Amino acid sequence: MKKSLVALAVLAASGAAFAQSNVTVYGIADVWFGSVKGEISGADAEALEIAGSARQTVLESGGVNSSRWGLMGSEDLGGGLKANFNLEQGFSVDTGAAADTSKAFSKQAWVGVSGGFGEAKLGLTGTAYDDIRGLNNNTFDSALAAVPWVDYIGTGSNQIYYALPDMGGFAGALSYALGEGKDVNVSAGSVLSLNVQYAQGPFMVGFAHQKEKTDTKLGLGALDGINDLLIEIGADTVAEDIRVATAGSTAKYNLLTGSYDLGVAKLLASYNTVKITVPDITDSLKAKEFQVGADIPLSSAMTLAVGYGQSKWEEEINIAKRTAFSAAVNYSMSKRTSVYAGFNNTKLDADADVADIEVKTTIFAVGLNHKF
Amino acid sequence: MKKSLVALAVLAASGAAFAQSNVTVYGIADVWFGSVKGEISGADAEALEIAGSARQTVLESGGVNSSRWGLMGSEDLGGGLKANFNLEQGFSVDTGAAADTSKAFSKQAWVGVSGGFGEAKLGLTGTAYDDIRGLNNNTFDSALAAVPWVDYIGTGSNQIYYALPDMGGFAGALSYALGEGKDVNVSAGSVLSLNVQYAQGPFMVGFAHQKEKTDTKLGLGALDGINDLLIEIGADTVAEDIRVATAGSTAKYNLLTGSYDLGVAKLLASYNTVKITVPDITDSLKAKEFQVGADIPLSSAMTLAVGYGQSKWEEEINIAKRTAFSAAVNYSMSKRTSVYAGFNNTKLDADADVADIEVKTTIFAVGLNHKF
Amino acid sequence: MKKSLVALAVLAASGAAFAQSNVTVYGIADVWFGSVKGEISGADAEALEIAGSARQTVLESGGVNSSRWGLMGSEDLGGGLKANFNLEQGFSVDTGAAADTSKAFSKQAWVGVSGGFGEAKLGLTGTAYDDIRGLNNNTFDSALAAVPWVDYIGTGSNQIYYALPDMGGFAGALSYALGEGKDVNVSAGSVLSLNVQYAQGPFMVGFAHQKEKTDTKLGLGALDGINDLLIEIGADTVAEDIRVATAGSTAKYNLLTGSYDLGVAKLLASYNTVKITVPDITDSLKAKEFQVGADIPLSSAMTLAVGYGQSKWEEEINIAKRTAFSAAVNYSMSKRTSVYAGFNNTKLDADADVADIEVKTTIFAVGLNHKF
Repeated sequence: MKKSLVALAVLAASGAAFAQSNVTVYGIADVWFGSVKGEISGADAEALEIAGSARQTVLESGGVNSSRWGLMGSEDLGGGLKANFNLEQGFSVDTGAAADTSKAFSKQAWVGVSGGFGEAKLGLTGTAYDDIRGLNNNTFDSALAAVPWVDYIGTGSNQIYYALPDMGGFAGALSYALGEGKDVNVSAGSVLSLNVQYAQGPFMVGFAHQKEKTDTKLGLGALDGINDLLIEIGADTVAEDIRVATAGSTAKYNLLTGSYDLGVAKLLASYNTVKITVPDITDSLKAKEFQVGADIPLSSAMTLAVGYGQSKWEEEINIAKRTAFSAAVNYSMSKRTSVYAGFNNTKLDADADVADIEVKTTIFAVGLNHKF
Repeated sequence: MKKSLVALAVLAASGAAFAQSNVTVYGIADVWFGSVKGEISGADAEALEIAGSARQTVLESGGVNSSRWGLMGSEDLGGGLKANFNLEQGFSVDTGAAADTSKAFSKQAWVGVSGGFGEAKLGLTGTAYDDIRGLNNNTFDSALAAVPWVDYIGTGSNQIYYALPDMGGFAGALSYALGEGKDVNVSAGSVLSLNVQYAQGPFMVGFAHQKEKTDTKLGLGALDGINDLLIEIGADTVAEDIRVATAGSTAKYNLLTGSYDLGVAKLLASYNTVKITVPDITDSLKAKEFQVGADIPLSSAMTLAVGYGQSKWEEEINIAKRTAFSAAVNYSMSKRTSVYAGFNNTKLDADADVADIEVKTTIFAVGLNHKF
Repeated sequence: MKKSLVALAVLAASGAAFAQSNVTVYGIADVWFGSVKGEISGADAEALEIAGSARQTVLESGGVNSSRWGLMGSEDLGGGLKANFNLEQGFSVDTGAAADTSKAFSKQAWVGVSGGFGEAKLGLTGTAYDDIRGLNNNTFDSALAAVPWVDYIGTGSNQIYYALPDMGGFAGALSYALGEGKDVNVSAGSVLSLNVQYAQGPFMVGFAHQKEKTDTKLGLGALDGINDLLIEIGADTVAEDIRVATAGSTAKYNLLTGSYDLGVAKLLASYNTVKITVPDITDSLKAKEFQVGADIPLSSAMTLAVGYGQSKWEEEINIAKRTAFSAAVNYSMSKRTSVYAGFNNTKLDADADVADIEVKTTIFAVGLNHKF
C-alpha cells in the first residue's frame, strides 16, 4: 500500500523547507476556574426524586473558545486557485480528554479549493447555518453566553460546502451533508444548510436556514460542558417529557441575525425558529428563540459584554421556556492571550400544563485563553 | 516520572531552531465524491434474504491514497549513521474518524537507525511483503484498483524490520512481528516477511513472501472503505460459507510482481498465491490471484490507468472467484495536489458447488488529493 | 460557533512566521527488545491455579522514557510575564497504541503563566509530589528501575499547580486537583500535593507529600508496561488478598529523597511511606519503601546505573514485601539519541500469615531512545 513510500516521497520532494511552509500547527488552550450551581425544584421534580441543589467548584475547558489543536495549510496552484486543508481536533484542556474519542479530528477534517469562484470544502466542517449561528452571539459567543437555544447539528460529516466570494459586502454559503445511513427500510438522512450575509461599515445582517433529516436530535444547548450530573439528569428528564427525537424526523432552523457597532458599544441581536416534525405525529414541536447583547469596550484591551436570551417551546400547548442572562469581561494581555471573568444564569421552566419543574444553573468563572 | 522535565530539557537543549529541523509534520488529505452500487443475487442469496440492490451517493476518504497525518524526522549521528522515526495516523477526511481508535498512530510508529548497512526499524510499520504488494498495483494502487485479492496483515505491531541498502539495483527487506499473545495453552503468533527486488532502467521485478501465524484472518480486500452495509453483509455471508479464520491457523503469501515502462505506457503485473492451513483440517484453503494494468501518460500532468484482476479460491473443490476491472484518470494540478476520476467494477461469484450467490459492486468516483 | 473563523483569524493575525515561533512539536520514541520472564510459586498460588512460569520475547515501548509526542509554546507578555502551554500524548511506539484512548493528550494538557512569582499551570499535569518522585530514582528512572513501590496518581486532571521561583537553591510546588465527582451521597475526591527542594553544588534533597481522596487506588507500580498476562493475573490476585481500594478511602504519601554527586558516581536515595485509610475499617494499610542507586559515568557518553529498592506492606500484620534490583548502561550516540541495555529483577513475596505466594519478574532489555 506504499504507505511510508508516499510519506518519504512527499518529504523528499519538498526538502527541508517543507514543514515550515506547508503546514501550520495551531490551537487554542482555554481553561476556566469557577463555581457551578444547579437547582431543580417544583412538585413534579420532587415526585421524580430529582429535586435538589448542588454547587461544585470546577476547573473546566473552553470558557470563551472550545480548546482545540489543528493542522492547516494552503497551496498556490496558480491562476488564483488554491488547494486548502484543515484538520482540527477538539479536546478538554482540563483533563486532556478528546472531544470525540472516535475521531482523530472532531471539528474540522476537509480538503478543498478556493479562488475567484469562492471556496469549496469537502469533508467534516461546520454547516452554512453554523457559520453565522454564533456570529452575533452575546458575551463573546462563549460557554457563558446567554443563548439558551435548542441544540442543532453544528458540523456535518460527509459534507460538501461552498461559500461565495465576498461581493461588495454580500456573502453567502451552501452546504449539504450526506447521511450515508441508507438502509433497506430507511432513506439516508441529510443536513442541508445555507446562509446569506450583508455587511457595510458598522452594520451587518445575516440569514441562515438549516434542514436536518433523520438523525435530528433535540438537545439542551446551554448545558453543554457543565459538569454537573444533577442538573443534567434533571434537564434530561424534562426533555423526555417534552419529546424524544425520532428516526425519520425533520428539523428546520431559520435564523435572522444582525449587529451594529455604535463605537461606544456593539449591539447584537438574533432571532431563531425551530420546527421539528416527526412521522405519524400531526403536531410539530416549535421553538421561538431570541437573544440580544452588547459588547462595550472599556479600554483598548478590555471589553465588557452583556446578554439576554430566551427560548420558548410549544407543541399543541406551551411546553417550556428557557431564559438566560450573562455578563463577562475580557482583558487582552497580548494578541494571543487574554483573561476573562463572567457569569451566566439560565432558567428552564416547564409550562404548568406539562409539569411543575424548574431547573436553574448559575456559573461564575474566571479563565485564561491562549491561542497558539 | 519527570515527564514535563524531559520535554522541557529537550526544548532547552535544542533552542528555537528545534521544531523546524527535527520534526516534519506531513500528511495527505484525499476525498472523493461518487456513487457506490451493490447488488447481491442468486437463489441462495434470496434464501438467505440478502438479495437486493442499493445505490448510495457518498463522500468518502482515500480514493488514491488513504488520508493520514504524521511526524517524521532524522538525526545525523556521524559516520554515515542516522537515527530515524516516523509516527503516522490514518483517518477519514470525510468524517474525521480515526482509522483505529485504540491507536495514537495506526499506520507507522517506529524508531530506528540507517547507514551503510541498510535500515532497521523497530515498532509498528509495514511488513517486507507489504513493501512491494502495492508497488505495481494497477489504477494507481488506489481504492479503485482492480486488485480483488484475499486480505492480509499489512502492518505489524512489535515488528523488527530490516532493509538492505540498494546494491546496484538489487534491494531486499526482512521483517518479523512478535505476536506477544503468549498464553498457557497457545503459543504466540508471528508475522514473518521478506522481499527481494531488482530494478534496471525501465524494468523492475520483485518477489515477496509472508507467513502469518495464529491471528490470520481471511478478509475481503476490495470492499474496504466502501460504505455500503448491504454489500458487506452479503460478502460476509459468503465468506462464512467458505471458511472462518481460526486461531492457530497459518497463512502463507507468495507474490511475484514486475513492471516495464515502454514510455507510451508502463505495464504492471503481479501474481500472488495464498495458502491458509487450519489445525485439525486436512485441506488447505488456496487462492491464486493475478492482476495486470497499464499507466498511460496522456500529457506531462495527466495519466490514464487501467487494470484487471482476478482471485480464485479453492479448497477440495472450487469455492469462489472474484474479478474486477477499473480505470482512472489522474491530473496533477501541482506537485502536491491532483484531481482524479475513475470507476471500479468488482464481481464475487461463489462456485455452483458452494452456493448460488453473486455480489457485484460498482463505484464511480471523482476526487481531490492534497499532500502537505 | 465560529470554529474555523477563529482558526483562520489566528493564522491571519500571526502571518507566515507563526507556526515556527509559537509551537514546538516534540517527542520521544523509545523502544526496547528483550525477554520478560514471570514466575508465580507457592502453595496458595497452586491452590489458586495461578502457579507457573512463562518467558516471552517482546518488543516494548518506553524502556528509559515513556514514548510521547506533544505541542508546547511560550508567549512573552511583557514585564517578565509569559503565557505557556503544553499538550502531550503518551503512546506505545511498538504498536502505535494511545496510552489512554479517551484522551487527546494523556500526559500534559495545561495552559498557564510564569514570571517572577513562579509558575502556575491549569489543567492536566503531574502533581507536585510527582515532580520529585522520580527525580532520584535509580537506573535512570526507567521502566527497568528498581523502585517496586505502591502506585499513586501521578497526574491530576482539573489541577491547579503552582511552583515557586528558584530562590538560591530552594524550590517548591503546590498542586490541587478537583475531583468534580460530586454526588448527592459522595463528596468530591481531590489530590493535594506539595514539594520542597534544596540543591547546592553536588547535593540535592527534597521532600514531598500527597493526599489522595476517594479515587485512591492501590496499584502495583513496577509491573506497569510489562506485557505478561500471567504475572499480572498473579499480582492482581495477591493485591486482592491484601486490600481492594474503596470509594471514600484516603491515601497519604510522604517522600524524602536526595542525591550526592561524588564525581566518580552520583548516589541516589529515597524513602517513601504510604498510608491508606478506608471508611469503617480501623486499621490502615501502611507501606514503607526505600530505594538506593548509583549512576557511574564510564566515559563522557556512557553511564552505568545500578539500583536496589524495597517496599513492605502491613496492616495489623505484615502483608507482603517487594524487592527489586536492577542495572543498566546508557550510551549517548548524540544529544538526542541513545542506546541502552539493562535488566530488572523484582520479587513480590506475600507474608506467610497472608498467603504462600511469590511472584518473580525478570527483564533483560536492549533499547533505543530518540528525542525529537
